[in-house]
Amino acid sequence: MAVNPAPLPDFYPVPGVRLGTADAAIKKPGSDDLVVIELAEGSAAGAVFTRNAFRAAPVLVAEQALAAGRPRYLLINTGNANAGTGEQGLADARSTCAALADLTGVDARAVLPFSTGVIGEPLPVARIEAALAEALSDLKPDNWARAAAGIMTTDTRPKAASRQLDIGGHTVTVTGMAKGAGMIKPDMATMLAYVATDAPVAATGLQNLLSDAVERSFNRISVDGDTSTNDACMLVATGQAPLEPLQPGTDAFNDLAEALTAVCIELAQGLVRDGEGASKFVTLAVGGARDEAEALRVAYTIAESPLVKTALFASDPNWGRLLAAIGRAGVPELDVERVSIRLNDVLIAERGCRAAGYTEAQGAAAMAAEDITIAVELDRGDSAATVWTSDLSHEYVRINAEYRT
Amino acid sequence: MAVNPAPLPDFYPVPGVRLGTADAAIKKPGSDDLVVIELAEGSAAGAVFTRNAFRAAPVLVAEQALAAGRPRYLLINTGNANAGTGEQGLADARSTCAALADLTGVDARAVLPFSTGVIGEPLPVARIEAALAEALSDLKPDNWARAAAGIMTTDTRPKAASRQLDIGGHTVTVTGMAKGAGMIKPDMATMLAYVATDAPVAATGLQNLLSDAVERSFNRISVDGDTSTNDACMLVATGQAPLEPLQPGTDAFNDLAEALTAVCIELAQGLVRDGEGASKFVTLAVGGARDEAEALRVAYTIAESPLVKTALFASDPNWGRLLAAIGRAGVPELDVERVSIRLNDVLIAERGCRAAGYTEAQGAAAMAAEDITIAVELDRGDSAATVWTSDLSHEYVRINAEYRT
Repeated sequence: MAVNPAPLPDFYPVPGVRLGTADAAIKKPGSDDLVVIELAEGSAAGAVFTRNAFRAAPVLVAEQALAAGRPRYLLINTGNANAGTGEQGLADARSTCAALADLTGVDARAVLPFSTGVIGEPLPVARIEAALAEALSDLKPDNWARAAAGIMTTDTRPKAASRQLDIGGHTVTVTGMAKGAGMIKPDMATMLAYVATDAPVAATGLQNLLSDAVERSFNRISVDGDTSTNDACMLVATGQAPLEPLQPGTDAFNDLAEALTAVCIELAQGLVRDGEGASKFVTLAVGGARDEAEALRVAYTIAESPLVKTALFASDPNWGRLLAAIGRAGVPELDVERVSIRLNDVLIAERGCRAAGYTEAQGAAAMAAEDITIAVELDRGDSAATVWTSDLSHEYVRINAEYRT
Repeated sequence: MAVNPAPLPDFYPVPGVRLGTADAAIKKPGSDDLVVIELAEGSAAGAVFTRNAFRAAPVLVAEQALAAGRPRYLLINTGNANAGTGEQGLADARSTCAALADLTGVDARAVLPFSTGVIGEPLPVARIEAALAEALSDLKPDNWARAAAGIMTTDTRPKAASRQLDIGGHTVTVTGMAKGAGMIKPDMATMLAYVATDAPVAATGLQNLLSDAVERSFNRISVDGDTSTNDACMLVATGQAPLEPLQPGTDAFNDLAEALTAVCIELAQGLVRDGEGASKFVTLAVGGARDEAEALRVAYTIAESPLVKTALFASDPNWGRLLAAIGRAGVPELDVERVSIRLNDVLIAERGCRAAGYTEAQGAAAMAAEDITIAVELDRGDSAATVWTSDLSHEYVRINAEYRT
């Protein structure tokens, strides 16, 4: 059902990273719902977590563990978010981490837990712990595709991206995977993303690399405007490439940042393409704003307008709804007579009105595509922002009305 | 299709107000789409208009006319919003007002235009002007019900409310009507509302009366979070009750304010009950906030969450989605362990978790009703706010995907 999805790419395995999956019977039987990622000793890690005030137990535990030292294992379950579960949820998350630590001989704080799925149900600790051995026995460097499938919830397809680049004559890899289709407005969103590289980067530089990349990728998408309690995005650098640690400000560091951002954007766009019920993939490009915050406010107001989203579903070039959304975005002293809107290459509105010469037939032709770009020019400054979103379809309502039944 | 709608009440006509309708063939043939409201000489008026930056031509013209003097006629068409129509739209609105002024012998600025319907299409001026005589010949004091039907767009039923009160031994009437079912988040929303009283009130006092009542009624609802380009709410005082002008601060003025607010709340709730595709009428009561703005932010974040709205449609007591929405509402330093949620009389969440003793069966039973109250206690202050909303159903998607086809 995803919109113009790219085929799952070939993954470049990341030296120092092995992945294993298991079926712990947390979600529907017969599919993997438990993933273990093993990181070589000495790996550095950075992470961003949801800014929702209700942060799930695994988010709190993972954040503490990351502050305490270097992670060796990531333990990910789908089917249950372990959110809204209070003290018991924290104890459950710690228990599963301790069980994995026991099996692998590492400190319990070297295991970071991640959960996604239904909110408010107790984590099925016994089933998870019983499946750990199976996941460990499955650990392989080239298991990214199965792991990407193993973390899915309402996703219809796994999302992954992979790049290689040359640094100092050595091939360095950046590979990542993500899940999420609904409750998607990462700030961070019900998304989980894991990206690894074998480039050597110190933890502080790594955190900056990740924060910058996330700001330009996962924090630029919205399926439904809802921000999850469990979002997490993790970047690991195993340092196994035979290079000196990359220093911020160097060309090599910038090249790595560029590759990382490309991987994150590909993953983020993959989430939107697989957004719940999505039939359109929409790029909202807002320009001519006084600052980026203003451009983002306009882009998100359009992206999250139910009326715009249902018009997109209907392939209806209803520019009046775009205009109404721009007008309520809270842009101070907006001069509507300077606003213009393009749908792909078609100028549909200018000076706040229907563009001279625009015909509904042109708009309908542009709307017929599954991939659509809506460009809004505010003509009051030099700042711009791009946000990716999907439409609001019957299928979205069906998925979310039936989610727990 | 409306949710538990009250039967259309008996209207108390307002001395000094006559209404007439006509079929100008603007929307589907065979139904009224033009309404003229005549106000007796000496009537005072106040109005609130949309705060969307894209304000429709009739909004601009009506606002100017109101500033210039006392209105004698309100000219309302449905089927075409005359929004996003630029200079031509302004000229068209003025033309229809001038035509009505010619027929009635008043100054053109004593006619206020109002439009609702499709955005971005030219106003069918000739058809409106041709139907004016029919509407004028229909003018009657007891035509409120037909007028309330004549301003409908996607509404499935007319909305009206009426009260009488005793002031100084005289019976005073407050009667109003409103339309709107989608693009409803009045700040003001695609809503139009007209309320009239025969109480004598000076224009400044009237404007304050209206602003206060609107803040507690129309500005407390959201069907889809979208704010229209055409919203307008108008209060008229004909002054035909044999009383001295009511002065702010007196008991009589306060009694009138109370009756007016009751009428506005009944109309606003009527809009939500008839919200596009609505199958639930939901009262969101947020308490324990530090200030009203914070309570409103939480209430609207819940009211406009697609995930909460689809769960309401499914009668699914999915408190995890409520919790996630509260958590992303931008409440600074929210202590989630103090948050509790009630569904009607059922405590479903406390201390940020599932409430002890709560069962899904209790939640499902509460959710089965069409009228539901969700009460959120933040337990961090003394401020509260109530917002009314509807759910997100397949019917909402169908209506808005097919609106222009």
